[in-house]
Amino acid sequence: MSKASTGNYFEDFGMGQAIAHPTPRTVTSGDVGLYTGLYGSRFALQSAATVAADMGYEQTPVDDMLVFHLVFGKSVPDISLNAVANLGYADCRFLRPVYAGDTLSAASEVIGLRENANGKTGVVYVRTEGRNQHGEPVLRFVRWVMVNKRDPERAVQAEMGVPGLPEAVAACDLPAAAPSARACRFDTTASGSDALWEDYAPGEQIDHIDGMTLEDAEHMLATRLYQNTARVHFDAVAQQGSRFGKRLIYGGHIISLARALSFNGLANACRIAAINGGSHTAPAFAGDTVYAWSEVLDKTETGTEGMGALRLRLVALKNRPAGEGFTLRQECGRYDPDVLLDLDYWALMPRRMH
Amino acid sequence: MSKASTGNYFEDFGMGQAIAHPTPRTVTSGDVGLYTGLYGSRFALQSAATVAADMGYEQTPVDDMLVFHLVFGKSVPDISLNAVANLGYADCRFLRPVYAGDTLSAASEVIGLRENANGKTGVVYVRTEGRNQHGEPVLRFVRWVMVNKRDPERAVQAEMGVPGLPEAVAACDLPAAAPSARACRFDTTASGSDALWEDYAPGEQIDHIDGMTLEDAEHMLATRLYQNTARVHFDAVAQQGSRFGKRLIYGGHIISLARALSFNGLANACRIAAINGGSHTAPAFAGDTVYAWSEVLDKTETGTEGMGALRLRLVALKNRPAGEGFTLRQECGRYDPDVLLDLDYWALMPRRMH
Amino acid sequence: MSKASTGNYFEDFGMGQAIAHPTPRTVTSGDVGLYTGLYGSRFALQSAATVAADMGYEQTPVDDMLVFHLVFGKSVPDISLNAVANLGYADCRFLRPVYAGDTLSAASEVIGLRENANGKTGVVYVRTEGRNQHGEPVLRFVRWVMVNKRDPERAVQAEMGVPGLPEAVAACDLPAAAPSARACRFDTTASGSDALWEDYAPGEQIDHIDGMTLEDAEHMLATRLYQNTARVHFDAVAQQGSRFGKRLIYGGHIISLARALSFNGLANACRIAAINGGSHTAPAFAGDTVYAWSEVLDKTETGTEGMGALRLRLVALKNRPAGEGFTLRQECGRYDPDVLLDLDYWALMPRRMH
Repeated sequence: MSKASTGNYFEDFGMGQAIAHPTPRTVTSGDVGLYTGLYGSRFALQSAATVAADMGYEQTPVDDMLVFHLVFGKSVPDISLNAVANLGYADCRFLRPVYAGDTLSAASEVIGLRENANGKTGVVYVRTEGRNQHGEPVLRFVRWVMVNKRDPERAVQAEMGVPGLPEAVAACDLPAAAPSARACRFDTTASGSDALWEDYAPGEQIDHIDGMTLEDAEHMLATRLYQNTARVHFDAVAQQGSRFGKRLIYGGHIISLARALSFNGLANACRIAAINGGSHTAPAFAGDTVYAWSEVLDKTETGTEGMGALRLRLVALKNRPAGEGFTLRQECGRYDPDVLLDLDYWALMPRRMH
Repeated sequence: MSKASTGNYFEDFGMGQAIAHPTPRTVTSGDVGLYTGLYGSRFALQSAATVAADMGYEQTPVDDMLVFHLVFGKSVPDISLNAVANLGYADCRFLRPVYAGDTLSAASEVIGLRENANGKTGVVYVRTEGRNQHGEPVLRFVRWVMVNKRDPERAVQAEMGVPGLPEAVAACDLPAAAPSARACRFDTTASGSDALWEDYAPGEQIDHIDGMTLEDAEHMLATRLYQNTARVHFDAVAQQGSRFGKRLIYGGHIISLARALSFNGLANACRIAAINGGSHTAPAFAGDTVYAWSEVLDKTETGTEGMGALRLRLVALKNRPAGEGFTLRQECGRYDPDVLLDLDYWALMPRRMH
Repeated sequence: MSKASTGNYFEDFGMGQAIAHPTPRTVTSGDVGLYTGLYGSRFALQSAATVAADMGYEQTPVDDMLVFHLVFGKSVPDISLNAVANLGYADCRFLRPVYAGDTLSAASEVIGLRENANGKTGVVYVRTEGRNQHGEPVLRFVRWVMVNKRDPERAVQAEMGVPGLPEAVAACDLPAAAPSARACRFDTTASGSDALWEDYAPGEQIDHIDGMTLEDAEHMLATRLYQNTARVHFDAVAQQGSRFGKRLIYGGHIISLARALSFNGLANACRIAAINGGSHTAPAFAGDTVYAWSEVLDKTETGTEGMGALRLRLVALKNRPAGEGFTLRQECGRYDPDVLLDLDYWALMPRRMH
């Protein structure tokens, strides 16, 4: 048997199967520094130890999306190396802050299987959890991917089933992502914006204005930083034979970029509490320029005094500024071809103090 | 009113106005590591904790230009987002060493305003200061930028005035940038050069020999690391409509590159004490290859025993080695089109011990 | 005399000459983070503090190849700036783990000189040693380079001689690279592979499957991170006049990339103990895609209980997956033109516990 893995095929998964993903990872300030260089995020809580201390954090928390990418990256060799498509995310909750020095490990449980009618592929649903060195969960999410079968000729006999998934993380289920007692000490001088939770209303749309052009060297640096091994991002020779003929950019790279751009308009949306769902609606390639806009979908109080939550739609567009009409769907209901990302998430935002 | 900022226009500035720039930033070894990868600087004091300790520093000081870029970057969203041109720097002093773990914040004061005759633009002069987490100033500089008016049809009524600025930071005003008592412990084995302060004479020109080719992925990594949001560096789509048709490289990227190249010939010029002035005389683009040469303009003792200062001109050229004639100006007095940068600064350099 | 160095020529070296290389370097988590982004290595020992502690290391050891590149890079300005070719490595031993916070310095001794018959060049053999801040050697290797003569017309009178070099580091000479007492605590869950030392047999060949495309921005970031100043990697203008017409990629970049790819199939080859020899058999350029395969050449016990060593051949190919026949040499005995690297090294790998 070969010692080099070619990844799992649909037949290799079983309902309830538990998979411990290899290569735990100690997050360092080196990872954080490169992440800053890759996206240029300006959220004050993750940028300055002084702000983090004021808000009651032990240390500067690592950007939530960096935590997501590290945990997601670990799951790739076991779950999605033979994926035809990443179909969706759901019920993603950021359970505890992660600090430089923490060691993350990841494990997944198979919670759903469905063979496709064509017999060539199946859909695998996994719940993936990242834990820190104390065994405490820091992140939990469900994702589902379409995976090739090893043998398209043979029907799969295994137990099948599709899990029930929440359309969104309920307000009452939002993790207490912010240390509670001192959230009141949020200083808007540090963020540069007076717009707090009270100032956003459902339906409001925000153009984040700036654009950022994608480079192969950058998305590969990012994706390797996450120890994500999906070959479509790295191997230009293999990609010549693919549908697009070139390297595809990791969808998470687009999320991080759009999130960083969203600072301009959501400067106090200091953390991501949960991701309700998300679609990578079109592939992104080096040379594309990414713009972003947001829409407030909902808002809720949280269990943390002084901290509210906004449910936001974050849309990334390619090669077209967001201000030109907040592009999303065509009349037929399909996504506009310029839309790269439609992400639905809960952000935490300080409330106005009295 | 939109929550996303499109930056300030000329009318938004008033004489004496104080602006606290958002997003304080904790400098980490991660930032320093990426900075090394971007420029490859070899000055021993910033490279090795052992050298820093020998010279009496608490820790390894962060490269002075990284400090400059971080403070400058913070000022961009408020001062120069609508700048037509960065016109100049003056009176820039590095007041205190910055160490990994320090948190920098920045504020500016408007010290000059001048409306241009065409009515479309004006010049804004600001004095920007960076402070550490103890509120101690670490860097102070003046810069002036040409900014668009929001309404070119309406004359501006505000108080105007142009500040008096020193042609150079006077020797007696040079900050005591080096911890004094132990500068004598500078070990030339660590720098690889025996050429000390006594060995340089005004008028001397030095070819730094090596060349470095610029890449889009690199200057964008750098500029995002500095949380500098000037869109001309990042947005290839918007730049298609500009005069140059492509992304412009942040002028500070060229300074850092030229400074790193200058190690070969100025290996003991261990710190930048002050920048007297500087001009980005031509735009730089990905694909250009940068060379550098220096000229000794002046020299002075400093208040720090064992440490002298050299006033240096640092010139960056594109696509032409510096050794081919130390190119600077044409006969008509204008800069040669191959000149990218003409920087006038004071470097600290250990003196020969007896 | 110019203060900027143009490097040493063949006439500048003398038998037994000792050269202390400038610019000591404190290795930080910032360097390690960027290294991860550049290669995406997944070896658990270097990735996770928890794994390092379980194996008895004081801290997470820095990747052995990063240590190699930093020490090698220091030697470039003195040894190989005027090199026509890097001819070989031998007797390279990793003597002590390096941790973030350690300061590395490097020195070389000239151990061989041979003038070439054409009178234009000569071969210089040096033994280079890297030490930490306590003066303890961490790495020692021999390399030899072909260097231009300053004056091709004049014969060199100096003492000549070629050192005897081991074909491979003998098993009994392998450094005790792993802290001994606790190697038994290696957890294969962390590496994701059950294949331990007992499971590999001489003659076994392993396709590492994945490919990685090279970018100019990436190899330059890497080579500057190592403070390696060889101009062929950086200066596109100067390279236009060279044989290849473009920037050459530092050979060590290919070693690190191939080593990272080799995780898939050698997941428990947790450290490099020694490099027996290596050839960069063809130049690599931006745009090439690198694949890798390994062959087990030999295996031995080590003085460390619970730890064995595998002697491995690591081959990097360009633009052709390794699985297509484990390409190495043509029938005539010359390397296949698609082979970039043929490296012979000893890796440490935990043994199965009883």
